[in-house]
Amino acid sequence: MAKPTRARLPTSEPLKMAPELEELIGYNLKRAYVVVQKDYRAALGDGGLSPRTFAALSLAVAYPNLTQSNLARMLGIERSGLVAIIDELERDGLLKRTTVPGDRRVQALVPLEAGIAAHRATLAKVKAHEDKLLEDLSDVEKETLIFLLRKIRRHETES
Amino acid sequence: MAKPTRARLPTSEPLKMAPELEELIGYNLKRAYVVVQKDYRAALGDGGLSPRTFAALSLAVAYPNLTQSNLARMLGIERSGLVAIIDELERDGLLKRTTVPGDRRVQALVPLEAGIAAHRATLAKVKAHEDKLLEDLSDVEKETLIFLLRKIRRHETES
Repeated sequence: MAKPTRARLPTSEPLKMAPELEELIGYNLKRAYVVVQKDYRAALGDGGLSPRTFAALSLAVAYPNLTQSNLARMLGIERSGLVAIIDELERDGLLKRTTVPGDRRVQALVPLEAGIAAHRATLAKVKAHEDKLLEDLSDVEKETLIFLLRKIRRHETES
Repeated sequence: MAKPTRARLPTSEPLKMAPELEELIGYNLKRAYVVVQKDYRAALGDGGLSPRTFAALSLAVAYPNLTQSNLARMLGIERSGLVAIIDELERDGLLKRTTVPGDRRVQALVPLEAGIAAHRATLAKVKAHEDKLLEDLSDVEKETLIFLLRKIRRHETES
């Protein structure tokens, strides 16, 4: 009688994968993003800005007086999801909320000096992390990858 | 005196982006994944398997008697994070946990008939969703994209 088979994969062996998952673009996108995100967190350290906080700060620095609604749209996230991010940035003294002249209901975001400096320092670290992690991709491969990801991003919708 | 500027972006205009974010591979990966994930959820509907549950089921179907530890490794997630996914699959009658002969502490996963059918049906829907969403990418572009994402995935580490 055959013994019951048991799928025990030695850690030294490359992991087997489900072939149909490996052919899905969504699955590969997610797995590749997890690689980049883990390395980002390792490179930036515990005190560093998270990817989403860094993205929000980048846009606030690039477009002073941006409203929260517009920032949420630019990030492709729900306005409610943005509140915690802005709270964090405001608490850390990186930006402040101000009211817009003529419409007190609308709050605009103003980057503070510490925020501009934190943005610059974080951007340098993020670029260094990507350069190192992705050093086995040629410049042409990186450009091609961004081009193809942007083709997918043409389908971005507002939250 | 100049009026205070206010960044109000009309919804009809393409959104402006922070140029340095647009050059980051991590940012583009995340945004592209969000596009695919949103479309996945719209295509599969509320009753459909989530991407991560579908991935776990796919591997359980491909490798009967897989242990939970190995499945976690294959998915690149923490074993603790897998428990809720397996609970969901077991509750829905798609697979069952069994003990491994000779080692009662180890639980192996056995796909049930309903699980094999759900996997087949979901895979067809997922493929159709990707084909439709990504129809403006040529076959060569899709292959190139997967090739480049796999280059990044060479850096996958175990959780």
